[in-house]
Amino acid sequence: MDSIFAKRVQNAPRSFTRKILDVIDAKDIISFAGGLPDESLFPHELIKKEMNHSLDTMPRSIYQYSQAQGAIQLRSELAKTYTNSTEKEILITTGSQQGLDILCKAFIDEGDTIVVEAPSYLAALNLFALYNANIQEVPLTCNGIDTIQLEILFKTKKPKFFYAIPTFQNPTGWSWKKECKVEVARLAKKYNVIIVEDSPYNALKYEESIELGFEELLPKLSVTLGTFSKTLVPDFRIGWMRADEKFLKVFQNMKENTDLQSPKFFQYIVAKIMKDGNLSLHVKSLIEAYRVKRNAMAEALKKEFGKDIEYEIPTGGMFFWIKFDDKVDTMKLFDIAIEHKIAYVPGSVFYKDNKKNSYVRLNFTNATFEDIKIGIKRLNLALKEYNAKHE
Amino acid sequence: MDSIFAKRVQNAPRSFTRKILDVIDAKDIISFAGGLPDESLFPHELIKKEMNHSLDTMPRSIYQYSQAQGAIQLRSELAKTYTNSTEKEILITTGSQQGLDILCKAFIDEGDTIVVEAPSYLAALNLFALYNANIQEVPLTCNGIDTIQLEILFKTKKPKFFYAIPTFQNPTGWSWKKECKVEVARLAKKYNVIIVEDSPYNALKYEESIELGFEELLPKLSVTLGTFSKTLVPDFRIGWMRADEKFLKVFQNMKENTDLQSPKFFQYIVAKIMKDGNLSLHVKSLIEAYRVKRNAMAEALKKEFGKDIEYEIPTGGMFFWIKFDDKVDTMKLFDIAIEHKIAYVPGSVFYKDNKKNSYVRLNFTNATFEDIKIGIKRLNLALKEYNAKHE
Repeated sequence: MDSIFAKRVQNAPRSFTRKILDVIDAKDIISFAGGLPDESLFPHELIKKEMNHSLDTMPRSIYQYSQAQGAIQLRSELAKTYTNSTEKEILITTGSQQGLDILCKAFIDEGDTIVVEAPSYLAALNLFALYNANIQEVPLTCNGIDTIQLEILFKTKKPKFFYAIPTFQNPTGWSWKKECKVEVARLAKKYNVIIVEDSPYNALKYEESIELGFEELLPKLSVTLGTFSKTLVPDFRIGWMRADEKFLKVFQNMKENTDLQSPKFFQYIVAKIMKDGNLSLHVKSLIEAYRVKRNAMAEALKKEFGKDIEYEIPTGGMFFWIKFDDKVDTMKLFDIAIEHKIAYVPGSVFYKDNKKNSYVRLNFTNATFEDIKIGIKRLNLALKEYNAKHE
Repeated sequence: MDSIFAKRVQNAPRSFTRKILDVIDAKDIISFAGGLPDESLFPHELIKKEMNHSLDTMPRSIYQYSQAQGAIQLRSELAKTYTNSTEKEILITTGSQQGLDILCKAFIDEGDTIVVEAPSYLAALNLFALYNANIQEVPLTCNGIDTIQLEILFKTKKPKFFYAIPTFQNPTGWSWKKECKVEVARLAKKYNVIIVEDSPYNALKYEESIELGFEELLPKLSVTLGTFSKTLVPDFRIGWMRADEKFLKVFQNMKENTDLQSPKFFQYIVAKIMKDGNLSLHVKSLIEAYRVKRNAMAEALKKEFGKDIEYEIPTGGMFFWIKFDDKVDTMKLFDIAIEHKIAYVPGSVFYKDNKKNSYVRLNFTNATFEDIKIGIKRLNLALKEYNAKHE
């Protein structure tokens, strides 16, 4: 019976996230695993106010079928956030995950090469595998990617696109330096490769810095993916794609064929929240809150592990990327950690081949201060038990 | 540059719906083209009441990421509408259009055969083409499909599934007789072919009748697609898939990879509306209103065209399927009709090869009574002009 399914289903990796979610449903586990925002910070009153206002003022036509590209009100607000963009270059998607799916639909035939950072976003790797893409990795450091390797890949493999998260990356929290971006843009033009810039964390910036986006460096040959899941709430499921119109028209066609349109109701509300300046205000308060959590985790890590682990303190986003001693296999450590009631994501799942390594990804935005302290302590106890077993 | 796109994009048919929508944006055109519900009948006050209630009572966690299968509250309500189904056999989708996309993801490799009714739902045909499926048609009459032809296709082409709309079909408004369903179920079992029953119009039933669903005839080997777009409002974008768990788990995996989840917020509201019995009440009032519109269109057709056209009066759904004299090419008639400020969908677009024919699909749910009368009159004038030109 199984052979009735398409090849892509047989290639589909079972989501590790799901395995973790299954495990950590146990009540007393502290989880640094998910990439979840802190729900106590959701702007419930603001949403309520705007929804009530909308319910009183929106015409019935709000609930009718509408065009696939999305509400012009929201597209206009989003266009303003980019240099030289118009609402014609914006498509509303069901979260940025659907942006990825649309990207695959538009560009990937079986066996086509695409390039990703190593490590990269798990759900993107899973999706690319589902489209039977030939996934090539380029090594990432805290300064950016290895552009020498990238040029070799661009030259020899002729990839359809390079999927990257240049700012506050998932899983590392790292950002590319400006020189890296400029060089990648140069290579993209030289070899005619699309740069897909996924930017879910850009707004969550804990230090002063100026991030240069590929929409400025490479407006015609780059696609930007964005989402309100980290800045407002995930459940609205509103993401967007920004791209040159020649690409956007194809994306819109794929969107229309996939699910006709995303709900306008939420789009109107988000547009209003943006227009009134309330999104920026809310993000400012998020940044304040998340910065303190980040500091708390940095402090706990320093206190518990000292110099036994390697990491950068992230200047934005939601994650610490921690390297244990080379001999530690963090996938094996995971089972011990769960016994100690602490969950994280093992580093290996963020690589194409899942080969074992000594990294873990820790999320700091979802846990409470108390849980951050206790959780890091538990992680250290789990590591000690692991080391004792593997001496 | 175009060659950078995937093959499926190059195969993607340009949506005729879009062409029509572009044309009929002109203000004074009466349109029977879209498959749109009547927005003046949307239960605005009911939605407002339920949303306000939800905003006051829902916990913040409603806005957090959640699992791909959908809210259990809604899945439970939906399971009750099927004989012997549980919430484990229901997946929430972004409209039933996403159900189609998930179906393609789960089953279609390039070149795989699928069977459709001739004629069939335009957006399904477009999507199947996008997945590079080998589409085989089986002729439909007002009693059901040609089961002799179907058996030949099942036997010789080994299709992955048979996609059908057995009740109040789009575009014809026709329903299969019980014997046809029983025979199709027998053939499905014999040749191990999945029956996909799309059921968007089932609730819009204007005469007494009992519709037997494939979830009863063929629970293990059938997939049911449903939607609230016709019974509540399209913009919530809530559809569902019902299938045996072995299929449903794969569908859920595909859903998760595609867009993680659909918004829970609307799912809670719809579950509440169902649970309180308010959906059935609303559908009853819809049926009353649409029945009168159907009667108005039947009367106008009789008055204007007499015996010059052939059609069945639909016992449910949203469409009349009208046959003009054989010599009329309704695609050519379309341009004249637009000059007369009346729009419809030419029959040819509902067939795989778009070969010319003398059918038109007329929607009767969206237009006002006044527009139904005037529109049918204009259609007759357009036909007369066409006939004069082609004598």
